[in-house]
Amino acid sequence: MRIISSVSEMQSYADSLRKEGMTIGFVPTMGALHEGHLSLLKKSIETSDKTILSIFVNPAQFSPSEDFGKYPKDFERDEKMAEELGVDIIFYPAKEAIYPNGYSTYTIVEGLSDRLEGKSRPSHFKGVTTVVNKLFNIVKPHIAFFGQKDAQQALIIKRMITDLNMDIDVVICPTIREDDGLALSSRNSFLSPEARKEAAFIHQALKEAESLHLNGDQNSEILIPKITDTLNSAPIARIDYVAIVDSETLLPIESTKQGALVAVAVFFDTTRLIDNILLTAVK
Amino acid sequence: MRIISSVSEMQSYADSLRKEGMTIGFVPTMGALHEGHLSLLKKSIETSDKTILSIFVNPAQFSPSEDFGKYPKDFERDEKMAEELGVDIIFYPAKEAIYPNGYSTYTIVEGLSDRLEGKSRPSHFKGVTTVVNKLFNIVKPHIAFFGQKDAQQALIIKRMITDLNMDIDVVICPTIREDDGLALSSRNSFLSPEARKEAAFIHQALKEAESLHLNGDQNSEILIPKITDTLNSAPIARIDYVAIVDSETLLPIESTKQGALVAVAVFFDTTRLIDNILLTAVK
Repeated sequence: MRIISSVSEMQSYADSLRKEGMTIGFVPTMGALHEGHLSLLKKSIETSDKTILSIFVNPAQFSPSEDFGKYPKDFERDEKMAEELGVDIIFYPAKEAIYPNGYSTYTIVEGLSDRLEGKSRPSHFKGVTTVVNKLFNIVKPHIAFFGQKDAQQALIIKRMITDLNMDIDVVICPTIREDDGLALSSRNSFLSPEARKEAAFIHQALKEAESLHLNGDQNSEILIPKITDTLNSAPIARIDYVAIVDSETLLPIESTKQGALVAVAVFFDTTRLIDNILLTAVK
Repeated sequence: MRIISSVSEMQSYADSLRKEGMTIGFVPTMGALHEGHLSLLKKSIETSDKTILSIFVNPAQFSPSEDFGKYPKDFERDEKMAEELGVDIIFYPAKEAIYPNGYSTYTIVEGLSDRLEGKSRPSHFKGVTTVVNKLFNIVKPHIAFFGQKDAQQALIIKRMITDLNMDIDVVICPTIREDDGLALSSRNSFLSPEARKEAAFIHQALKEAESLHLNGDQNSEILIPKITDTLNSAPIARIDYVAIVDSETLLPIESTKQGALVAVAVFFDTTRLIDNILLTAVK
């Protein structure tokens, strides 16, 4: 496994792989790898000739009040996990290589970026789309892998790829969960033992909504209070939002009959967790 | 010469050229070709294995009050000129292929885009950088050619390429002028005979500023009124701006001693012309 930190070296290497006719699979991450990331990497290794993992905690997607400074970092552990899995290259740039002095270009997806997470974290997706655009230009992948856990991010990146005519396929992989249903996230490590226990209510609430939907309760005005109630059975939980939206536009919908994305964001102490479930159309 | 209008066909063709080890030179234009464009194409043909010319009148860089609707178009004439010169491919997409329904992604260069032209044309550069980013992803060039006539555009595109880690070299080519000094522009065709005659004052004013600068008058407070006076000797002229700025930041400077960009925008009736001159540092 090769570790590359220079942008130009990564570009030359990607060029040489492409000239040899190799397909490049790419998994961009902020490190602190868990089974969620590993599932993306496994998928890439299965489907691409070479798999590139990037590890970069992107300051542009954190607001000043957020947890950029304390975001978990353990490169040696990540490196070991990647190597064992069969990753070919880790792209691991310094902050200054990605955002040098005078940096001023941003990629924005209007509309989608302002909804759900974008309401709570106003410049978050501007940071995400900018760094992903940059990483695509550096790593030059044929296929990129993202998790359904960050449903809105996946949708926005697909929109950016389509709109900007990036010649890249996207594969969205299912959310990986703990035994009690909690979606894997690097931020789970911040949870106190009590909060960790209560965090299982998130998935439980989403599964209950799915059951109701499948059993004929498809009115958002019924489903949202139900989800809210279940989340509130966790005493530490502080709900940021519970939303039932169209899975393409992310705009609120009144009924889940034609399918929907149910998305929630919940604080446990200062740790903010998100999760979602896709409801399929019912006949 | 091949004419391609499909985005995916252009991408596949660019891929095949790259696989053969060919270098791709790219000249993005809005058509209505003149000697300025031809000079860029000649430079590309000299330095690249294959030269791609794009012709696309980009609605995103015009405000609703501007001249998008009446921008000159003559594809057959452009095609003939390109063929005679030795252009290999014209990429000529439909508007719907570039901005389909639901389009919502934009590339923005903050700061630089708000100065000079950006003050008079608030969303102009957002449109320029977005379409150029898209065209780069479609045409996949190694080198792209732009004219010094649009000095701010050239600077912003170089900034975008650097910031977004686009693996593309940029060549800026000198402004091509009529015998009386008027910079070539597709918009010159809109000028009445009187306005066309008076438009020569633009270059004259810039050359006078250069002489003053070289002879020791380097104070912007002296130079700007001189330029303004000369422009005002054209009765039809209505000055939009006369600016003396740092050639990298485009921020106003008090003295041209360390070098400067002198940029002007002038209306002749409803036709808005721009021009500029780069002053070199004096010892």
